[in-house]
Amino acid sequence: MLEFLNQHRSIRKYTNQTIDNELLNSLLEAACRTSNTGNMQAYSIIVTTDQEQKEKLSPAHFNQPMIKQAPVVLTFCADFNRFTKWCKQRNADPGYDNFQSFMATAIDALIAAQTFCIAAESAGLGICYLGTTTYNAGEIIETLQLPELVVPVTTITVGYPAETPEQTDRLALNAIVHKETYHVFSEKEIDEIYSEKENSDFYKQFVTENNKETIAQVFTDIRYNRKNNEFFSEKFLNVLKKQGFLK
Amino acid sequence: MLEFLNQHRSIRKYTNQTIDNELLNSLLEAACRTSNTGNMQAYSIIVTTDQEQKEKLSPAHFNQPMIKQAPVVLTFCADFNRFTKWCKQRNADPGYDNFQSFMATAIDALIAAQTFCIAAESAGLGICYLGTTTYNAGEIIETLQLPELVVPVTTITVGYPAETPEQTDRLALNAIVHKETYHVFSEKEIDEIYSEKENSDFYKQFVTENNKETIAQVFTDIRYNRKNNEFFSEKFLNVLKKQGFLK
Repeated sequence: MLEFLNQHRSIRKYTNQTIDNELLNSLLEAACRTSNTGNMQAYSIIVTTDQEQKEKLSPAHFNQPMIKQAPVVLTFCADFNRFTKWCKQRNADPGYDNFQSFMATAIDALIAAQTFCIAAESAGLGICYLGTTTYNAGEIIETLQLPELVVPVTTITVGYPAETPEQTDRLALNAIVHKETYHVFSEKEIDEIYSEKENSDFYKQFVTENNKETIAQVFTDIRYNRKNNEFFSEKFLNVLKKQGFLK
Repeated sequence: MLEFLNQHRSIRKYTNQTIDNELLNSLLEAACRTSNTGNMQAYSIIVTTDQEQKEKLSPAHFNQPMIKQAPVVLTFCADFNRFTKWCKQRNADPGYDNFQSFMATAIDALIAAQTFCIAAESAGLGICYLGTTTYNAGEIIETLQLPELVVPVTTITVGYPAETPEQTDRLALNAIVHKETYHVFSEKEIDEIYSEKENSDFYKQFVTENNKETIAQVFTDIRYNRKNNEFFSEKFLNVLKKQGFLK
Protein backbone atom coordinates (compact mmCIF):
# COMPACT_ATOMS: atom_id res chain seq x y z
CA MET A 1 0.00 0.00 0.00
CA LEU A 2 2.72 2.50 0.94
CA GLU A 3 4.57 1.81 -2.30
CA PHE A 4 1.33 2.42 -4.18
CA LEU A 5 0.53 5.66 -2.32
CA ASN A 6 4.08 6.88 -2.85
CA GLN A 7 3.57 6.49 -6.60
CA HIS A 8 0.88 9.17 -6.62
CA ARG A 9 0.98 11.86 -9.27
CA SER A 10 -1.85 14.03 -10.55
CA ILE A 11 -2.99 13.07 -14.06
CA ARG A 12 -4.15 15.88 -16.33
CA LYS A 13 -4.35 14.04 -19.66
CA TYR A 14 -6.73 11.18 -20.26
CA THR A 15 -7.30 8.62 -23.05
CA ASN A 16 -10.66 8.41 -24.81
CA GLN A 17 -11.63 5.34 -22.79
CA THR A 18 -14.81 5.89 -20.79
CA ILE A 19 -15.19 4.59 -17.24
CA ASP A 20 -17.45 1.61 -16.89
CA ASN A 21 -20.54 2.49 -14.86
CA GLU A 22 -20.23 -0.50 -12.59
CA LEU A 23 -16.61 0.36 -11.82
CA LEU A 24 -17.49 3.99 -11.13
CA ASN A 25 -20.26 2.97 -8.76
CA SER A 26 -18.02 0.56 -6.89
CA LEU A 27 -15.45 3.35 -6.42
CA LEU A 28 -18.18 5.68 -5.18
CA GLU A 29 -19.45 2.98 -2.80
CA ALA A 30 -15.95 2.64 -1.32
CA ALA A 31 -15.74 6.43 -0.95
CA CYS A 32 -19.03 6.45 0.97
CA ARG A 33 -17.84 3.70 3.33
CA THR A 34 -15.25 6.01 4.89
CA SER A 35 -15.57 7.86 8.22
CA ASN A 36 -18.09 10.70 8.46
CA THR A 37 -19.54 12.93 11.15
CA GLY A 38 -22.12 11.09 13.27
CA ASN A 39 -22.92 8.88 10.26
CA MET A 40 -25.14 11.68 8.96
CA GLN A 41 -23.48 11.30 5.54
CA ALA A 42 -24.08 14.99 5.04
CA TYR A 43 -22.40 15.33 1.67
CA SER A 44 -23.19 14.77 -2.00
CA ILE A 45 -21.25 13.86 -5.09
CA ILE A 46 -22.34 15.21 -8.47
CA VAL A 47 -21.22 13.08 -11.41
CA THR A 48 -20.74 14.92 -14.70
CA THR A 49 -20.27 12.84 -17.83
CA ASP A 50 -22.41 14.85 -20.26
CA GLN A 51 -20.20 16.88 -22.59
CA GLU A 52 -22.56 19.85 -22.57
CA GLN A 53 -22.50 19.97 -18.78
CA LYS A 54 -18.69 19.81 -18.82
CA GLU A 55 -18.60 22.78 -21.18
CA LYS A 56 -20.85 24.70 -18.82
CA LEU A 57 -18.63 23.83 -15.83
CA SER A 58 -15.45 24.69 -17.67
CA PRO A 59 -15.34 28.50 -17.15
CA ALA A 60 -15.82 28.08 -13.38
CA HIS A 61 -12.59 26.05 -13.46
CA PHE A 62 -10.85 28.73 -15.54
CA ASN A 63 -11.13 26.46 -18.56
CA GLN A 64 -8.50 24.04 -17.31
CA PRO A 65 -8.54 21.42 -20.11
CA MET A 66 -9.09 18.46 -17.75
CA ILE A 67 -12.77 19.33 -17.29
CA LYS A 68 -13.69 18.91 -20.93
CA GLN A 69 -11.22 16.12 -21.57
CA ALA A 70 -11.86 13.78 -18.63
CA PRO A 71 -14.61 11.18 -19.10
CA VAL A 72 -15.87 11.85 -15.57
CA VAL A 73 -15.91 14.99 -13.44
CA LEU A 74 -16.92 14.66 -9.78
CA THR A 75 -17.98 17.62 -7.67
CA PHE A 76 -17.90 16.88 -3.94
CA CYS A 77 -20.33 19.02 -1.95
CA ALA A 78 -20.98 19.83 1.67
CA ASP A 79 -24.71 19.01 1.89
CA PHE A 80 -27.08 19.50 4.80
CA ASN A 81 -30.09 19.80 2.48
CA ARG A 82 -31.13 16.14 2.51
CA PHE A 83 -30.55 15.68 6.25
CA THR A 84 -32.45 18.90 7.05
CA LYS A 85 -35.41 17.75 4.91
CA TRP A 86 -35.48 14.44 6.75
CA CYS A 87 -35.40 16.17 10.15
CA LYS A 88 -38.33 18.39 9.16
CA GLN A 89 -40.33 15.33 8.08
CA ARG A 90 -39.59 13.67 11.44
CA ASN A 91 -40.75 16.35 13.83
CA ALA A 92 -37.17 17.43 14.55
CA ASP A 93 -35.73 20.96 14.46
CA PRO A 94 -32.60 20.93 12.26
CA GLY A 95 -29.92 23.46 13.23
CA TYR A 96 -27.43 23.02 10.42
CA ASP A 97 -27.57 26.45 8.78
CA ASN A 98 -24.32 27.58 10.38
CA PHE A 99 -20.56 27.60 9.86
CA GLN A 100 -19.73 24.72 12.19
CA SER A 101 -22.14 22.47 10.27
CA PHE A 102 -20.56 23.61 7.00
CA MET A 103 -17.11 22.67 8.31
CA ALA A 104 -18.33 19.23 9.45
CA THR A 105 -19.87 18.41 6.08
CA ALA A 106 -16.97 19.90 4.13
CA ILE A 107 -14.58 17.67 6.10
CA ASP A 108 -16.74 14.64 5.33
CA ALA A 109 -16.93 15.49 1.63
CA LEU A 110 -13.14 15.85 1.44
CA ILE A 111 -12.43 12.60 3.25
CA ALA A 112 -14.79 10.83 0.85
CA ALA A 113 -13.12 12.56 -2.10
CA GLN A 114 -9.66 11.35 -1.14
CA THR A 115 -10.94 7.82 -0.53
CA PHE A 116 -12.43 7.91 -4.02
CA CYS A 117 -9.10 9.06 -5.46
CA ILE A 118 -7.12 6.26 -3.83
CA ALA A 119 -9.72 3.71 -4.94
CA ALA A 120 -9.66 5.10 -8.49
CA GLU A 121 -5.86 5.08 -8.70
CA SER A 122 -5.82 1.48 -7.51
CA ALA A 123 -8.10 0.65 -10.47
CA GLY A 124 -5.61 2.19 -12.92
CA LEU A 125 -7.39 5.52 -13.25
CA GLY A 126 -5.74 8.92 -12.93
CA ILE A 127 -7.16 11.83 -10.98
CA CYS A 128 -6.63 15.54 -10.61
CA TYR A 129 -8.02 17.86 -7.92
CA LEU A 130 -9.28 21.27 -9.05
CA GLY A 131 -8.77 23.95 -6.40
CA THR A 132 -10.90 26.31 -8.46
CA THR A 133 -14.04 24.86 -6.85
CA THR A 134 -14.02 27.24 -3.87
CA TYR A 135 -13.09 30.17 -6.15
CA ASN A 136 -16.15 29.90 -8.32
CA ALA A 137 -18.54 27.93 -6.16
CA GLY A 138 -21.42 30.23 -7.10
CA GLU A 139 -21.10 29.47 -10.81
CA ILE A 140 -20.80 25.73 -10.08
CA ILE A 141 -23.92 25.89 -7.91
CA GLU A 142 -25.80 27.38 -10.83
CA THR A 143 -24.63 24.81 -13.37
CA LEU A 144 -25.22 21.82 -11.09
CA GLN A 145 -28.44 23.33 -9.68
CA LEU A 146 -27.38 22.94 -6.06
CA PRO A 147 -30.12 23.93 -3.61
CA GLU A 148 -29.71 25.66 -0.23
CA LEU A 149 -27.31 24.09 2.27
CA VAL A 150 -25.31 22.55 -0.57
CA VAL A 151 -21.87 24.01 -1.40
CA PRO A 152 -19.19 22.44 -3.63
CA VAL A 153 -15.82 22.08 -1.90
CA THR A 154 -13.67 20.20 -4.37
CA THR A 155 -13.74 18.78 -7.89
CA ILE A 156 -11.91 15.76 -9.23
CA THR A 157 -11.39 14.88 -12.88
CA VAL A 158 -11.02 11.15 -13.53
CA GLY A 159 -10.00 9.05 -16.50
CA TYR A 160 -7.47 6.57 -17.84
CA PRO A 161 -4.02 8.22 -17.87
CA ALA A 162 -2.58 9.38 -21.19
CA GLU A 163 0.60 10.63 -19.51
CA THR A 164 3.10 9.57 -16.86
CA PRO A 165 4.36 12.84 -15.47
CA GLU A 166 7.42 13.15 -13.25
CA GLN A 167 6.56 13.15 -9.58
CA THR A 168 6.61 16.60 -8.03
CA ASP A 169 9.00 17.30 -5.15
CA ARG A 170 8.03 17.21 -1.49
CA LEU A 171 9.54 18.97 1.49
CA ALA A 172 11.34 16.81 4.06
CA LEU A 173 8.99 15.35 6.66
CA ASN A 174 10.40 17.57 9.44
CA ALA A 175 9.00 20.62 7.62
CA ILE A 176 5.46 19.24 8.01
CA VAL A 177 5.50 17.05 11.13
CA HIS A 178 5.93 18.53 14.61
CA LYS A 179 6.49 16.50 17.79
CA GLU A 180 4.25 17.33 20.79
CA THR A 181 4.19 21.10 20.18
CA TYR A 182 4.56 23.30 17.11
CA HIS A 183 8.15 24.20 16.34
CA VAL A 184 8.31 27.76 15.00
CA PHE A 185 11.05 27.69 12.37
CA SER A 186 13.98 30.07 12.59
CA GLU A 187 15.13 32.02 9.53
CA LYS A 188 17.98 29.56 9.08
CA GLU A 189 15.66 26.56 9.33
CA ILE A 190 13.36 28.04 6.68
CA ASP A 191 16.40 28.41 4.41
CA GLU A 192 17.25 24.74 4.98
CA ILE A 193 13.68 23.51 4.44
CA TYR A 194 13.43 25.19 1.04
CA SER A 195 17.05 24.79 -0.12
CA GLU A 196 16.50 21.59 -2.12
CA LYS A 197 13.56 23.16 -3.94
CA GLU A 198 15.52 26.35 -4.58
CA ASN A 199 18.52 24.50 -5.93
CA SER A 200 16.57 22.33 -8.36
CA ASP A 201 16.80 23.01 -12.10
CA PHE A 202 13.03 22.61 -12.39
CA TYR A 203 12.35 25.53 -10.06
CA LYS A 204 15.19 27.64 -11.45
CA GLN A 205 13.49 27.40 -14.83
CA PHE A 206 10.11 28.10 -13.16
CA VAL A 207 11.51 31.38 -11.79
CA THR A 208 13.11 32.41 -15.11
CA GLU A 209 10.01 31.57 -17.16
CA ASN A 210 7.88 33.67 -14.88
CA ASN A 211 10.33 36.55 -14.93
CA LYS A 212 10.72 36.65 -11.15
CA GLU A 213 13.62 36.77 -8.68
CA THR A 214 12.52 33.95 -6.37
CA ILE A 215 10.19 30.94 -6.42
CA ALA A 216 8.18 32.53 -3.63
CA GLN A 217 7.49 35.54 -5.86
CA VAL A 218 5.96 33.27 -8.52
CA PHE A 219 3.46 32.19 -5.87
CA THR A 220 2.79 35.59 -4.31
CA ASP A 221 2.72 37.63 -7.53
CA ILE A 222 1.23 35.17 -10.01
CA ARG A 223 -0.16 31.85 -8.85
CA TYR A 224 -1.77 32.72 -5.50
CA ASN A 225 -1.60 36.47 -5.15
CA ARG A 226 -3.10 38.54 -2.38
CA LYS A 227 -5.56 40.40 -4.60
CA ASN A 228 -7.12 37.21 -5.96
CA ASN A 229 -7.09 35.47 -2.58
CA GLU A 230 -8.96 38.39 -1.02
CA PHE A 231 -11.40 38.64 -3.92
CA PHE A 232 -12.21 34.94 -3.84
CA SER A 233 -12.42 34.95 -0.03
CA GLU A 234 -15.22 37.45 -0.11
CA LYS A 235 -16.87 35.61 -2.98
CA PHE A 236 -16.82 32.26 -1.17
CA LEU A 237 -18.09 33.76 2.09
CA ASN A 238 -20.97 35.25 0.10
CA VAL A 239 -21.72 31.82 -1.36
CA LEU A 240 -21.80 30.28 2.12
CA LYS A 241 -24.19 33.02 3.17
CA LYS A 242 -26.40 32.66 0.11
CA GLN A 243 -26.60 28.86 0.49
CA GLY A 244 -27.63 29.32 4.13
CA PHE A 245 -24.50 28.26 6.01
CA LEU A 246 -23.76 31.51 7.88
CA LYS A 247 -26.91 32.04 9.93
CA MET B 1 -8.24 -2.28 -2.66
CA LEU B 2 -12.02 -1.89 -2.80
CA GLU B 3 -12.52 -4.90 -0.57
CA PHE B 4 -10.06 -3.37 1.88
CA LEU B 5 -11.72 0.09 1.80
CA ASN B 6 -15.13 -1.50 2.24
CA GLN B 7 -13.89 -3.11 5.46
CA HIS B 8 -13.41 0.29 7.11
CA ARG B 9 -14.70 0.82 10.62
CA SER B 10 -13.60 3.41 13.17
CA ILE B 11 -11.56 1.91 16.01
CA ARG B 12 -11.98 3.47 19.44
CA LYS B 13 -10.18 0.92 21.61
CA TYR B 14 -6.48 0.18 21.25
CA THR B 15 -4.05 -2.39 22.67
CA ASN B 16 -1.02 -1.28 24.68
CA GLN B 17 1.26 -1.82 21.68
CA THR B 18 3.09 1.35 20.68
CA ILE B 19 3.58 2.30 17.03
CA ASP B 20 7.10 1.86 15.77
CA ASN B 21 8.63 5.21 14.88
CA GLU B 22 9.86 4.05 11.50
CA LEU B 23 6.39 2.78 10.61
CA LEU B 24 4.77 6.01 11.76
CA ASN B 25 7.17 8.06 9.66
CA SER B 26 6.57 5.95 6.58
CA LEU B 27 2.80 6.43 6.98
CA LEU B 28 3.31 10.18 7.37
CA GLU B 29 5.56 10.22 4.27
CA ALA B 30 2.80 8.53 2.25
CA ALA B 31 0.28 11.07 3.57
CA CYS B 32 2.51 13.93 2.41
CA ARG B 33 2.86 12.43 -1.07
CA THR B 34 -0.80 13.08 -1.85
CA SER B 35 -2.21 15.98 -3.91
CA ASN B 36 -2.00 19.48 -2.46
CA THR B 37 -2.66 23.04 -3.61
CA GLY B 38 0.11 24.33 -5.85
CA ASN B 39 2.57 22.02 -4.07
CA MET B 40 2.81 24.63 -1.32
CA GLN B 41 2.31 21.86 1.26
CA ALA B 42 0.60 24.44 3.43
CA TYR B 43 -0.36 22.15 6.28
CA SER B 44 1.19 20.64 9.38
CA ILE B 45 0.74 17.48 11.40
CA ILE B 46 1.31 17.55 15.15
CA VAL B 47 2.20 14.16 16.63
CA THR B 48 1.23 13.63 20.26
CA THR B 49 2.64 10.56 22.04
CA ASP B 50 3.48 12.11 25.41
CA GLN B 51 0.91 11.08 28.02
CA GLU B 52 0.94 14.49 29.69
CA GLN B 53 0.20 16.21 26.38
CA LYS B 54 -2.66 13.77 25.73
CA GLU B 55 -4.14 14.64 29.12
CA LYS B 56 -3.94 18.33 28.24
CA LEU B 57 -5.61 17.72 24.86
CA SER B 58 -8.33 15.55 26.35
CA PRO B 59 -10.80 18.23 27.57
CA ALA B 60 -10.77 19.91 24.13
CA HIS B 61 -12.06 16.59 22.79
CA PHE B 62 -14.70 16.38 25.52
CA ASN B 63 -12.62 13.69 27.24
CA GLN B 64 -13.39 11.07 24.63
CA PRO B 65 -11.32 8.12 25.95
CA MET B 66 -9.48 7.55 22.64
CA ILE B 67 -7.23 10.55 23.21
CA LYS B 68 -5.65 9.22 26.39
CA GLN B 69 -5.78 5.59 25.32
CA ALA B 70 -4.35 5.74 21.79
CA PRO B 71 -0.57 5.49 21.51
CA VAL B 72 -0.55 8.26 18.88
CA VAL B 73 -2.76 11.29 18.39
CA LEU B 74 -2.36 13.31 15.19
CA THR B 75 -3.67 16.84 14.81
CA PHE B 76 -3.88 17.96 11.18
CA CYS B 77 -3.63 21.74 10.76
CA ALA B 78 -4.19 24.26 8.04
CA ASP B 79 -0.83 26.08 8.08
CA PHE B 80 0.26 29.12 6.11
CA ASN B 81 2.78 30.12 8.78
CA ARG B 82 5.80 28.34 7.30
CA PHE B 83 5.02 29.35 3.72
CA THR B 84 4.43 32.96 4.75
CA LYS B 85 7.76 33.06 6.59
CA TRP B 86 9.53 31.72 3.52
CA CYS B 87 7.87 34.34 1.28
CA LYS B 88 8.97 37.14 3.60
CA GLN B 89 12.57 35.85 3.52
CA ARG B 90 12.45 35.79 -0.28
CA ASN B 91 11.35 39.33 -1.02
CA ALA B 92 7.79 38.18 -1.77
CA ASP B 93 4.53 39.59 -0.35
CA PRO B 94 2.48 36.71 1.08
CA GLY B 95 -1.30 37.20 0.90
CA TYR B 96 -2.52 34.15 2.79
CA ASP B 97 -4.23 35.77 5.78
CA ASN B 98 -7.70 35.25 4.34
CA PHE B 99 -10.57 32.77 4.20
CA GLN B 100 -9.84 31.38 0.73
CA SER B 101 -6.30 30.52 1.80
CA PHE B 102 -7.67 28.87 4.94
CA MET B 103 -10.02 26.73 2.80
CA ALA B 104 -7.17 25.70 0.48
CA THR B 105 -4.91 24.60 3.34
CA ALA B 106 -7.76 22.96 5.25
CA ILE B 107 -8.59 20.92 2.14
CA ASP B 108 -4.94 19.88 1.82
CA ALA B 109 -4.71 18.93 5.50
CA LEU B 110 -7.84 16.77 5.21
CA ILE B 111 -6.72 14.99 2.05
CA ALA B 112 -3.42 14.21 3.77
CA ALA B 113 -5.30 13.02 6.87
CA GLN B 114 -7.40 10.55 4.93
CA THR B 115 -4.37 9.27 3.04
CA PHE B 116 -2.70 8.69 6.40
CA CYS B 117 -5.76 6.78 7.63
CA ILE B 118 -5.86 4.46 4.64
CA ALA B 119 -2.11 3.85 4.91
CA ALA B 120 -2.44 3.17 8.64
CA GLU B 121 -5.34 0.77 8.20
CA SER B 122 -3.40 -1.14 5.56
CA ALA B 123 -0.64 -1.60 8.16
CA GLY B 124 -3.11 -3.18 10.60
CA LEU B 125 -3.68 -0.04 12.65
CA GLY B 126 -7.08 1.34 13.61
CA ILE B 127 -8.05 5.00 13.41
CA CYS B 128 -10.78 7.29 14.65
CA TYR B 129 -11.55 10.85 13.53
CA LEU B 130 -12.46 13.37 16.22
CA GLY B 131 -14.90 16.00 15.00
CA THR B 132 -14.34 17.94 18.20
CA THR B 133 -11.29 19.60 16.65
CA THR B 134 -13.22 22.48 15.08
CA TYR B 135 -15.34 22.84 18.24
CA ASN B 136 -12.44 23.55 20.54
CA ALA B 137 -9.73 24.67 18.12
CA GLY B 138 -8.73 27.51 20.45
CA GLU B 139 -7.92 25.15 23.33
CA ILE B 140 -6.01 22.83 20.98
CA ILE B 141 -4.03 25.80 19.64
CA GLU B 142 -2.99 26.64 23.18
CA THR B 143 -1.94 23.10 24.09
CA LEU B 144 -0.04 22.49 20.85
CA GLN B 145 1.32 26.07 20.80
CA LEU B 146 0.15 26.76 17.27
CA PRO B 147 1.28 30.17 15.98
CA GLU B 148 -0.63 32.57 13.71
CA LEU B 149 -1.93 31.17 10.41
CA VAL B 150 -2.11 27.68 11.92
CA VAL B 151 -5.54 26.20 12.74
CA PRO B 152 -6.32 22.56 13.58
CA VAL B 153 -9.01 21.04 11.34
CA THR B 154 -9.13 17.40 12.34
CA THR B 155 -7.65 14.94 14.83
CA ILE B 156 -7.01 11.24 14.38
CA THR B 157 -6.31 8.73 17.13
CA VAL B 158 -4.22 5.75 15.99
CA GLY B 159 -3.27 2.43 17.52
CA TYR B 160 -3.52 -1.33 17.18
CA PRO B 161 -7.20 -2.36 17.40
CA ALA B 162 -8.49 -3.93 20.61
CA GLU B 163 -11.99 -4.28 19.18
CA THR B 164 -13.73 -5.33 15.97
CA PRO B 165 -16.92 -3.31 15.98
CA GLU B 166 -19.85 -3.98 13.66
CA GLN B 167 -19.76 -1.84 10.56
CA THR B 168 -22.14 1.10 10.70
CA ASP B 169 -24.91 1.38 8.10
CA ARG B 170 -24.68 3.53 5.00
CA LEU B 171 -27.40 5.10 2.87
CA ALA B 172 -27.91 3.73 -0.63
CA LEU B 173 -25.63 5.34 -3.20
CA ASN B 174 -28.51 7.17 -4.89
CA ALA B 175 -28.97 9.25 -1.71
CA ILE B 176 -25.44 10.64 -2.10
CA VAL B 177 -24.66 10.56 -5.82
CA HIS B 178 -26.45 12.82 -8.31
CA LYS B 179 -26.16 12.55 -12.09
CA GLU B 180 -25.41 15.79 -14.01
CA THR B 181 -27.56 18.03 -11.80
CA TYR B 182 -28.69 17.91 -8.17
CA HIS B 183 -31.90 15.99 -7.69
CA VAL B 184 -33.97 17.65 -4.95
CA PHE B 185 -35.64 14.77 -3.10
CA SER B 186 -39.40 14.66 -2.71
CA GLU B 187 -40.98 13.90 0.64
CA LYS B 188 -41.63 10.35 -0.50
CA GLU B 189 -38.05 9.88 -1.65
CA ILE B 190 -36.72 11.09 1.71
CA ASP B 191 -38.95 8.47 3.37
CA GLU B 192 -37.47 5.81 1.11
CA ILE B 193 -33.86 6.91 1.63
CA TYR B 194 -34.14 6.66 5.40
CA SER B 195 -36.53 3.68 5.66
CA GLU B 196 -33.84 1.02 6.09
CA LYS B 197 -32.22 3.03 8.89
CA GLU B 198 -35.57 3.68 10.53
CA ASN B 199 -36.57 0.02 10.42
CA SER B 200 -33.35 -1.32 11.90
CA ASP B 201 -33.33 -2.66 15.48
CA PHE B 202 -30.11 -0.76 16.17
CA TYR B 203 -31.73 2.61 15.51
CA LYS B 204 -35.00 1.67 17.22
CA GLN B 205 -32.97 1.07 20.38
CA PHE B 206 -31.04 4.31 19.76
CA VAL B 207 -34.33 6.24 19.77
CA THR B 208 -35.67 4.48 22.89
CA GLU B 209 -32.44 4.89 24.83
CA ASN B 210 -32.41 8.59 24.08
CA ASN B 211 -36.05 8.99 25.02
CA LYS B 212 -37.02 10.49 21.66
CA GLU B 213 -39.75 9.91 19.08
CA THR B 214 -37.55 9.72 15.98
CA ILE B 215 -33.90 9.12 15.07
CA ALA B 216 -33.75 12.62 13.63
CA GLN B 217 -34.67 14.06 17.04
CA VAL B 218 -31.69 12.31 18.63
CA PHE B 219 -29.52 14.29 16.21
CA THR B 220 -31.29 17.63 16.45
CA ASP B 221 -31.97 17.59 20.22
CA ILE B 222 -28.92 15.77 21.56
CA ARG B 223 -26.00 14.93 19.30
CA TYR B 224 -25.82 17.96 16.99
CA ASN B 225 -28.28 20.47 18.30
CA ARG B 226 -28.80 24.00 17.03
CA LYS B 227 -27.64 25.71 20.20
CA ASN B 228 -24.28 23.95 20.24
CA ASN B 229 -23.81 24.29 16.48
CA GLU B 230 -24.37 28.02 16.71
CA PHE B 231 -22.16 28.39 19.77
CA PHE B 232 -19.29 26.47 18.17
CA SER B 233 -19.75 28.29 14.85
CA GLU B 234 -19.05 31.61 16.49
CA LYS B 235 -16.20 30.13 18.47
CA PHE B 236 -14.52 28.68 15.38
CA LEU B 237 -14.96 31.89 13.38
CA ASN B 238 -13.29 33.74 16.26
CA VAL B 239 -10.40 31.27 16.15
CA LEU B 240 -9.97 31.86 12.40
CA LYS B 241 -9.93 35.58 13.08
CA LYS B 242 -7.48 35.32 15.98
CA GLN B 243 -5.11 33.09 13.99
CA GLY B 244 -5.17 35.64 11.16
CA PHE B 245 -7.27 33.88 8.51
CA LEU B 246 -10.11 36.40 8.21
CA LYS B 247 -8.31 39.58 7.15
